Amino acid sequence: MLPEISIDHALEKPIYRQVYEQIRSAILDHGLSRGERMPSTREMAGLIGLNRTTIKNAFDLLESEGLIRSYVGRGTFVEGPEPKLNWGELVSQPANPPAPPNAMVSFSASKPPEDQFPIEEFRATVREVIDSPEAAQILQLGPAGGYGPLRKFILSQMCERGIARDDDQVLITSGAQQAFDLIQRVLASNRETVVIEDPVYPGLRNAFLQGGARVLGAQMNEQGVDAASLDKLLEREHPRLLVLTPNFQNPTGATIPEAARREILDSVRRSGTILVENDLYGSLRYTGSEIPSIKQMDETGDTIQLGSFSKIAFPGLRVGWVIGPRRFIARLTEAKEACDLHSDQLSQAVLLRFAQSGRLAAHREKMIETGRERLRECLDGCSRFLPAGSFYTRPEGGMNVWVRLPQPLDAAELALRAARENVSYLPGKYFSVEKPHTNGLRLSFMGIEPHKILYGLQILGGIFAAEMSRVRRARQSEPQPALV
Amino acid sequence: MLPEISIDHALEKPIYRQVYEQIRSAILDHGLSRGERMPSTREMAGLIGLNRTTIKNAFDLLESEGLIRSYVGRGTFVEGPEPKLNWGELVSQPANPPAPPNAMVSFSASKPPEDQFPIEEFRATVREVIDSPEAAQILQLGPAGGYGPLRKFILSQMCERGIARDDDQVLITSGAQQAFDLIQRVLASNRETVVIEDPVYPGLRNAFLQGGARVLGAQMNEQGVDAASLDKLLEREHPRLLVLTPNFQNPTGATIPEAARREILDSVRRSGTILVENDLYGSLRYTGSEIPSIKQMDETGDTIQLGSFSKIAFPGLRVGWVIGPRRFIARLTEAKEACDLHSDQLSQAVLLRFAQSGRLAAHREKMIETGRERLRECLDGCSRFLPAGSFYTRPEGGMNVWVRLPQPLDAAELALRAARENVSYLPGKYFSVEKPHTNGLRLSFMGIEPHKILYGLQILGGIFAAEMSRVRRARQSEPQPALV
Repeated sequence: MLPEISIDHALEKPIYRQVYEQIRSAILDHGLSRGERMPSTREMAGLIGLNRTTIKNAFDLLESEGLIRSYVGRGTFVEGPEPKLNWGELVSQPANPPAPPNAMVSFSASKPPEDQFPIEEFRATVREVIDSPEAAQILQLGPAGGYGPLRKFILSQMCERGIARDDDQVLITSGAQQAFDLIQRVLASNRETVVIEDPVYPGLRNAFLQGGARVLGAQMNEQGVDAASLDKLLEREHPRLLVLTPNFQNPTGATIPEAARREILDSVRRSGTILVENDLYGSLRYTGSEIPSIKQMDETGDTIQLGSFSKIAFPGLRVGWVIGPRRFIARLTEAKEACDLHSDQLSQAVLLRFAQSGRLAAHREKMIETGRERLRECLDGCSRFLPAGSFYTRPEGGMNVWVRLPQPLDAAELALRAARENVSYLPGKYFSVEKPHTNGLRLSFMGIEPHKILYGLQILGGIFAAEMSRVRRARQSEPQPALV
Repeated sequence: MLPEISIDHALEKPIYRQVYEQIRSAILDHGLSRGERMPSTREMAGLIGLNRTTIKNAFDLLESEGLIRSYVGRGTFVEGPEPKLNWGELVSQPANPPAPPNAMVSFSASKPPEDQFPIEEFRATVREVIDSPEAAQILQLGPAGGYGPLRKFILSQMCERGIARDDDQVLITSGAQQAFDLIQRVLASNRETVVIEDPVYPGLRNAFLQGGARVLGAQMNEQGVDAASLDKLLEREHPRLLVLTPNFQNPTGATIPEAARREILDSVRRSGTILVENDLYGSLRYTGSEIPSIKQMDETGDTIQLGSFSKIAFPGLRVGWVIGPRRFIARLTEAKEACDLHSDQLSQAVLLRFAQSGRLAAHREKMIETGRERLRECLDGCSRFLPAGSFYTRPEGGMNVWVRLPQPLDAAELALRAARENVSYLPGKYFSVEKPHTNGLRLSFMGIEPHKILYGLQILGGIFAAEMSRVRRARQSEPQPALV
């Protein structure tokens, strides 16, 4: 219904404009809705006590804006605005915390160092691939399971290393992230219970949470997940899935010892849980000796293992893989087909060539040297600059060191201060499953040139120490209870 | 419990071996389970009436195979086999029908022709990309929304063409398949109703079915989806989503006329349904004049449009995109991040360069010529060789012609016969949503050299005609009811 139009003759605004504005606001505020019949100019002039030309002028303006429309012989109807969807209601708000600001020294990203990218080797590899007779095949639609020659290469390598078995098969994924997502869909899409490490890489946690799984955190110690408490958790919950990163876990950098791996294998067998071994960092060991993977130890062949080229070679090329029992991989491949048909073939062919040419192995050697040096700098920086009462892990490989600041420091709050001094890191809450990890933080050292690592830690150490002093002073100045 | 051991002294098989085999089978058939205590060799010898050495020999053999284990002072226990997961129970069987066998003339794949791939232009493009200073950036982790320069390029192109609006944003996906999957997750993950064309591309249907949506089929006619019956369906069901392919739909090849597009737009607005316009084939028009896209017509800006390079350029490089309201794209990008972090950057950079260098436009011209010729051959073949009573669509572009054979022919049955004569096609049931399309079939003409198209259709025509004759003969030889 058209609301009452009130004209103020005292205003400087022309009368027709006052009429126009009031009708317009009635339409836009949805008092008047699309298809509703307007009074005729004559009726309206009579109602308000104005002449017809004034009303006609207002209607013309409304019609020129598409808000009303006159049909000869039928009358005038409300035309617009078009009914719009309410996207705010239709889609939920993004749930992820905002990314930290860019910083001069960024401890925020667990990724290979850009300054060490083997660009020339990459260029040579790509040239070899595009000049090869297989180029045309790479450009055509491929199989959902992955580029055949790459699948074969990975499977045979894994068989040689004693990790894959006769009954195993490989699925190529768009990085490990897609592997988490597909496993969630195939094995945990009915609100099943999934146990993951706490703290854990948020992409892993989010894949299962978004899929509606009931996600529980397993307790970590300096040697990775705690086998004894995990056993109790599995016995109590009989979860569908357990996802572990036994080597240089992200974010803690911790590695599960061989004996604990055997215990975990026994525990999952007893509870009927499917074990997913996320081995993204396994080939980046800087010190100590290699420990057999859980999949290698598992006589039943039931363990699922994830791998990727992203942490050694080029993260921008999205190629990872899943190795597991043939029957499971067949189902996973079907899910992959419904997600994105297949992974990009150019990158698959490039990474295969990179591996087969020996360039990957050579680059890995270089990455190990780089990582060893940067880890050493990072641990040196921690020992020199972190305030007394801090704890930090001493990883033997990978890209991350985990720090626990003395209580009551809040790593998230201090991250804002650090950003103002151009140093960034991710606070513990990013990696939280059940525990808040308020005083925890991750130092990703791999992407930073060595001299900047110490510099960055010196700044962080200063910020943390200053906060500790402030806290201490505040405590001392608190009124003491009277001794009576 | 250990079953009773029975020894047959008449057998040639040594006694210890008979004992070994019976215990082994008890363990492997799970009569005896892991951790169970075995009788001592002495007890067992007494029980069966054998000497202890015989039992000892059997136990040694079992222990060497890891089936039992003796602990000094504690006794002997069943050790294996390891309890195995039952993968058959844990994962469902793949649901997709098996792919048709390879054939000399394959009408089965809706994809660009391999014989026309611009390999040299592709090679030149890749060389330019890897030699550019951006190469290092491409190799590093990228943003979830896609490679920045490509996103910007697509958005500005779409704005110029009047398709995208100020409030729109672009998300790069791993082909259109991933776009279907992400849209399902963000907008239809709670068993919402989704209306799609019937028949439809199975990848589209499967993405929504696997996500648990309630999928309804919209009736098609020669001019694409039927606007009048669609309006009734939307009014009755108020579905969350309507997914349409207005140009050269797969599998029918049909195009929705402009007037019907406007009617559909009105219908979705009235029912509050979100419209997804899948425009994969839009740029492959061979005859007739271009029709504005629904997104272009939609004044509200709410229509979501999907595009891809796969149908014009290289399907093996998985790069598609979604254009839609910024708020929706933000949520879709978050879902994409949980699925695979981001799309492959090398291919994104290569396709951007391919487009910006003008090579994509030149190749598209060539594809249009190729498609025009192949479509003409296909329609010519249909008119010459399909049996009387057949119906087929007359598309103005795209890659597919839809055939309905005269009743009671079964296209799936006849596909097996065709395969024996080295010609393949996909029968209607592959594209079924609600209707069975038993007598329907899809002819994908784009991938076949012209002379083979006529040859293939001649063979198909012969098979169909022979079956029609057989049916007619069978009918005639049926006993007629007596006229009394």
